[in-house]
Amino acid sequence: MNTHVHADHLTGTGLIKMKVPGVKSVISRASNSRADHFIEAGDKICFGDLFLEVRATPGHTLGCVTYVSGDGPGQPQPRMAFTGDALLIRGCGRTDFQGGNSLQLYHSVHSQILTLPKDTLVYPGHDYRGFSVSTVGEEMLYNPRLTKDEETFKKIMENLNLPYPKMIDVAVPANMVCGLQDLSSEAVGVASN
Amino acid sequence: MNTHVHADHLTGTGLIKMKVPGVKSVISRASNSRADHFIEAGDKICFGDLFLEVRATPGHTLGCVTYVSGDGPGQPQPRMAFTGDALLIRGCGRTDFQGGNSLQLYHSVHSQILTLPKDTLVYPGHDYRGFSVSTVGEEMLYNPRLTKDEETFKKIMENLNLPYPKMIDVAVPANMVCGLQDLSSEAVGVASN
Repeated sequence: MNTHVHADHLTGTGLIKMKVPGVKSVISRASNSRADHFIEAGDKICFGDLFLEVRATPGHTLGCVTYVSGDGPGQPQPRMAFTGDALLIRGCGRTDFQGGNSLQLYHSVHSQILTLPKDTLVYPGHDYRGFSVSTVGEEMLYNPRLTKDEETFKKIMENLNLPYPKMIDVAVPANMVCGLQDLSSEAVGVASN
Repeated sequence: MNTHVHADHLTGTGLIKMKVPGVKSVISRASNSRADHFIEAGDKICFGDLFLEVRATPGHTLGCVTYVSGDGPGQPQPRMAFTGDALLIRGCGRTDFQGGNSLQLYHSVHSQILTLPKDTLVYPGHDYRGFSVSTVGEEMLYNPRLTKDEETFKKIMENLNLPYPKMIDVAVPANMVCGLQDLSSEAVGVASN
């Protein structure tokens, strides 16, 4: 299950499908990429007695979704949100390419993620300091970008001056087909970056 | 439910008992403090369909315990550990007073907490940077003290040079009776520090 088409990492979908025949890949219809199943906002993904809700959280890319564990008897407490790059721990994904839009991201995070209960566990797609989990309550208090107002957030995002991802011309086309290209050793190298 | 007798904070037990009549306080027998219920290692604390296990994690104080959510069908996944001051996020409680012992703390954390599944959520008693949750796997990789060997850990703890808690002479006696002293405005002030 992919949260979005990555620009700087190669999805593991292709590798997983090679190693475990029969695995089906999942991505949002809005991503315009290839997969076995397409999902959209409001869908429920069931496994065993549990389910995930799909929430549309565009802004980092057009097709970004957040998977949120179900609400109701027998579902995990606290809830869990798998946010991809929409909401990171004390940060968020960049919004300067691939259909990114800072005001859309701001709106996505505030309406779809920060409205969840404060104890909801946030498992993001990235963290470079070793943190793997945060909570909605923590990010509401301490996220240095998303605690700001919309206009300040927009300015912050416009002034990040991040380098263009080195491998974007390899990673994006591969990810658009969910990594199902010929996995040459060079491409596998990208996956571990 | 107290994890231990604090030296620098006033337990909320007294206040909770004043506001919610009938509430029973819990602390470890090894703490030698007053409470309605005493618990020890191996006890199960049941509430509804859920339960917490009691694990003895001395070293910060003699009577420190960690409460760990149950293992088995219907119990939360991932598991949760409420570690008090035994294991903090990227740190641990000091071991230089109140029966503290660094080698005992090292052993407690390694045998009772870091043996839990890596995805176990760690909710510690303190964090001064806004983090409320970590995981066993994260602390196994990134805890700057507890990833070291025993001897190095002991040296780190001996060289922290922390100031003696200012309010220890007020806080410890109050906490030894679970905060059930006369809650004067001065003492309530301590609670909010």
